[in-house]
Amino acid sequence: MSTSHRRSTGRVTITDIAERAGVSIGAVSFALNGRKGVSEKTRERVLAVADELGWAPASAARSLAEAKTDTVGLVLARDPHNLGVESFYMQFLAGMETELSRRGYGLLLQVVPDGDRELATLRGWGRSHRVDGVLLVDLRVDDPRVGLFALDGSLPAVAVGDPSVAPGLTTVWTDDATSMREAVRYLAGLGHRRIARVSGLAALAHTRIRDDAFAAEMRARGLQPVLMRTDYSAESGAAATRSALDSPDRPTAFIFDNDIMAVAGLSVALERGLSVPEDVSMIAWDDSVLCAHTFPTLTALSHDVVAFGAHATRRLFDVIEGAAPAPHLDSTPSIQVRASTGPAPE
Amino acid sequence: MSTSHRRSTGRVTITDIAERAGVSIGAVSFALNGRKGVSEKTRERVLAVADELGWAPASAARSLAEAKTDTVGLVLARDPHNLGVESFYMQFLAGMETELSRRGYGLLLQVVPDGDRELATLRGWGRSHRVDGVLLVDLRVDDPRVGLFALDGSLPAVAVGDPSVAPGLTTVWTDDATSMREAVRYLAGLGHRRIARVSGLAALAHTRIRDDAFAAEMRARGLQPVLMRTDYSAESGAAATRSALDSPDRPTAFIFDNDIMAVAGLSVALERGLSVPEDVSMIAWDDSVLCAHTFPTLTALSHDVVAFGAHATRRLFDVIEGAAPAPHLDSTPSIQVRASTGPAPE
Repeated sequence: MSTSHRRSTGRVTITDIAERAGVSIGAVSFALNGRKGVSEKTRERVLAVADELGWAPASAARSLAEAKTDTVGLVLARDPHNLGVESFYMQFLAGMETELSRRGYGLLLQVVPDGDRELATLRGWGRSHRVDGVLLVDLRVDDPRVGLFALDGSLPAVAVGDPSVAPGLTTVWTDDATSMREAVRYLAGLGHRRIARVSGLAALAHTRIRDDAFAAEMRARGLQPVLMRTDYSAESGAAATRSALDSPDRPTAFIFDNDIMAVAGLSVALERGLSVPEDVSMIAWDDSVLCAHTFPTLTALSHDVVAFGAHATRRLFDVIEGAAPAPHLDSTPSIQVRASTGPAPE
Repeated sequence: MSTSHRRSTGRVTITDIAERAGVSIGAVSFALNGRKGVSEKTRERVLAVADELGWAPASAARSLAEAKTDTVGLVLARDPHNLGVESFYMQFLAGMETELSRRGYGLLLQVVPDGDRELATLRGWGRSHRVDGVLLVDLRVDDPRVGLFALDGSLPAVAVGDPSVAPGLTTVWTDDATSMREAVRYLAGLGHRRIARVSGLAALAHTRIRDDAFAAEMRARGLQPVLMRTDYSAESGAAATRSALDSPDRPTAFIFDNDIMAVAGLSVALERGLSVPEDVSMIAWDDSVLCAHTFPTLTALSHDVVAFGAHATRRLFDVIEGAAPAPHLDSTPSIQVRASTGPAPE
């Protein structure tokens, strides 16, 4: 973009906008910065006038002056080829966007191959003022990011995960332990005694929390927990299901750690000529559109992931504005009963 | 982040890094900016030393000086709740990230409800120097974005879509017309004469291109094209399948415009007691992990979406560096035959 173009847009000032809109300069400033203190009607009027006059902040100049980037950051440590498979992250991103766009904020997204690069990226953002704050997702057991942000505090952060694994940080979490215990109770109530959990990556804190809740609830009922470990991929979910169905003590029910593994597991059962739910019952975690459109449809642990992403983002803005660290429960995923669960076979 | 923190990191200069790494200042500059001109070994050495010394660009100051934001932008005009369902965009984003991260670039992502907001967001980015360039996706028929970027040229852009709908812009495209004709030929070769296309949004250019190719290939064979219109959602895909299966001239084969509609359509057929492929054959566009894990597995039009996102991003960097507008064919999606297609019933 040419320098002259920048200069010409720079000529419109907030004073011009205030004059044209018939409001105070302060009101214009509040409205343009997406801050509280003006009515929605005034905000819309100011934005319309600003647009009409061709006003735009020179964001680089402004962020230098205010140390404000109008951007929040998210780093995902994932294999790019597996990223699109689960609907969770795209839904979560979409939820973040609903809050960001209303404040005129952008999302700076970085996908990296591992935890080391994730940490390096976050450190770099802290040093270089690329973002006003970050969301931390996929919290691991003893996650080094927690120490970095809890101790330093120079870059506002919200951890998306259980408060127990992010001491000193604001957290937004779903109560997975309670949901897992309910899922086991529901299957036990249908007469199932051999229940397998097709679990995700052991290093992730939420996997561990679900593992522990599953084992505790099974043992409380005198049942032996069966745990199959996967990497969340469809392939590994199918392999775990095959292996469990081949075992002498074949499970009569499965709880899968994501929707795509449940779809893969369901196909494995059907391929073997088993009926679902007559021979084997199946539950998916993270209900999605997909679960409602398989045959049979999949019973799932359901919560609003778009709302979860929006909630976490609102809390991040609170932290950016100085809120003290605190845990915030988003929801307890509940069982959405569909066609893939039924009484245990005789 | 405090001002003093910024100043302290500002003390490390590229001269310090050059000295410590034992290379020229020019080499440091190339390496830190992700430009060609230094070996991979030197680049890694420079980055390691830079990290060790705690060097980081004050990105706001630097971008003001160089009019460079180290960020590229993407606006998605989609309902947030439908965004996570198709794997296409997350895969595409992941592909973009592979190219961005190696250059130290971030992605500024914005999700907006409609085309008007999309255009306004892009205009705003152009005025305010938020990004160095943008990718334009979901090109529509007579898309106003094309005129904006082709005429202005102040903000580098690459259109992801057919060259015919983005005159004056660099495009990266997949040859969907050829793929669609091959899909029809493949089904016709299996004896199918009543083939239904479960098509996406009519306003999207690639939908129109596939529609036209489908109709042309069907008519060339003396067959009547059956077109069902959807909004790409699982619900609308299921509804279209139901309606087609209820018609007196029930199709013996379906071509779905995305993976999730194919999964939904497959479930509708199974729910009705139809066998796939004995009673009805099904093909999905945009092959995905999902297509390989349904029962039966889904024959699909397959291309590497991660590579597509990476390719488009590389072309955007070319345009940022001054390349003249040109079309670039990424690939022609090919038929991955799986279990959901077979000979037409008698």
